[in-house]
Amino acid sequence: MRTAPVLLAGEALRRALDDLPGWKLGGGKLQKEFRFGDFNAAFGWMARVALLAERMDHHPEWRNIWNRVSVALHTHDAGGVTKRDIDMAAAMDRYAAAASADSRAG
Amino acid sequence: MRTAPVLLAGEALRRALDDLPGWKLGGGKLQKEFRFGDFNAAFGWMARVALLAERMDHHPEWRNIWNRVSVALHTHDAGGVTKRDIDMAAAMDRYAAAASADSRAG
Amino acid sequence: MRTAPVLLAGEALRRALDDLPGWKLGGGKLQKEFRFGDFNAAFGWMARVALLAERMDHHPEWRNIWNRVSVALHTHDAGGVTKRDIDMAAAMDRYAAAASADSRAG
Amino acid sequence: MRTAPVLLAGEALRRALDDLPGWKLGGGKLQKEFRFGDFNAAFGWMARVALLAERMDHHPEWRNIWNRVSVALHTHDAGGVTKRDIDMAAAMDRYAAAASADSRAG
Repeated sequence: MRTAPVLLAGEALRRALDDLPGWKLGGGKLQKEFRFGDFNAAFGWMARVALLAERMDHHPEWRNIWNRVSVALHTHDAGGVTKRDIDMAAAMDRYAAAASADSRAG
Repeated sequence: MRTAPVLLAGEALRRALDDLPGWKLGGGKLQKEFRFGDFNAAFGWMARVALLAERMDHHPEWRNIWNRVSVALHTHDAGGVTKRDIDMAAAMDRYAAAASADSRAG
Repeated sequence: MRTAPVLLAGEALRRALDDLPGWKLGGGKLQKEFRFGDFNAAFGWMARVALLAERMDHHPEWRNIWNRVSVALHTHDAGGVTKRDIDMAAAMDRYAAAASADSRAG
Repeated sequence: MRTAPVLLAGEALRRALDDLPGWKLGGGKLQKEFRFGDFNAAFGWMARVALLAERMDHHPEWRNIWNRVSVALHTHDAGGVTKRDIDMAAAMDRYAAAASADSRAG
C-alpha cells in the first residue's frame, strides 16, 4: 500500500484537491474539519482511520473535541503533500460519509 | 440511559424481535452475525459498540473473525432478554447500516 | 460516576494538582502532554480514555501526532476545572503508566 | 513486518511455545484466554491488537465477554501455526502485561 512519497504541487495538487470536497491547503498541509453526530460516531471514525494509518504507516495530526475532529495531513519525509496524503484524505471522507449515514438513520 | 432489567418474554419479546431483522433467540440470548466489508469496518463498528456498552454499562458477548462479528446479548441479572438488550441490538443494527453504507461507497 | 460539577479553585485546586504530576493550568484548563512508545500505544491509550469518557459523559479536548497526545480538560457547564476533570486526569495517568510499562517491557 | 508463512511443527513449535506462557495448541491453533481488570482494559488491549493486526495484515479469531478475551491464532494460507502467529502471540502477551500493570496500580 505504501507508495513512493512524491511531492504533489501546482496543477497536480489542484486536481487532487478538486476530488476532495472540503479539504484545503494550509501551512503546507491538507486540512479539514469533520463534524459527526456525537462522540461515539467521531471516535468510531477515528478508530477506523487509526487502523488505516497503521496499515499505511502514515499518521495524521488530529484534534478532537466531542463530535468534531480537525485533521492535518502531510508527508514528513517529502516535506509536503504526497499521494499518500491524498489517499488518506479520500479514505477519511469515505469513512465519514458512512458515519453520517448512521446519523441520518439514527 | 439505564433501564430497569425487566425480562421480556412471550408476545412482548416476539414484537421486539419483529423490529430487529436478522436477530434470533438461542440459548436465552439475542443472537446475530454481522458481516462487514473488511476488518477495518468490522473493528470500527466494534469500537462504537464498545463505547455504547460502557455508556450503558451493558456488554455483549461477541466473537470476531476478520470481517465477521457474532453477537449474543442477554441481561445476566435478569436471567434473560430485557429492554437493554433490545436497545443494544437496535444500536448495533444502526451502526452496521452505516458501515455498510461505507462499503457500498468504497 | 457523575459528580456535581463544583468548580475547584484556590487551595482546593492547588492540592488536587499536587497529586497530578505533569499537569498544569492553562486557559482555565488542566493540561498535559503524554508521550508513548509509538502510535499503537498512544491510540490504545486513547481508546481506553474514550471508553471512560463515554462512561463519565465527560470528554477531553485532545490532539494526537503519532506517539504524542496533548490533553486539555475542563467542565464546560461549570466554566472551569471540577472534580470530574481531576478524576479523568488521574485515570489518564493510570492508563499511561500502564502503556509505559509496556514500552519498558517491549 | 510480513514474514513468509513457514509452517512451524515438531521441535520448532515446541520451542516457540516454551517462550509463550499460557499458550497451548488446540485444533491446529495457538490458543490463550486473557483476563483483564475490566472491560475498559480488555477493549483497550483489543484496540492495540487490532492496530497490530492491520499492520501485519494478520488477524486473530477472538471472543470477548466483559473482562475476558479468548484468542485463537493460525495462518490460513499455511494451514497451521507460523512465525507470524508466534509474533502476534508475543505482542499480545506484551500488551496484556501492560494492561495488568495498570490493574495492579489502579
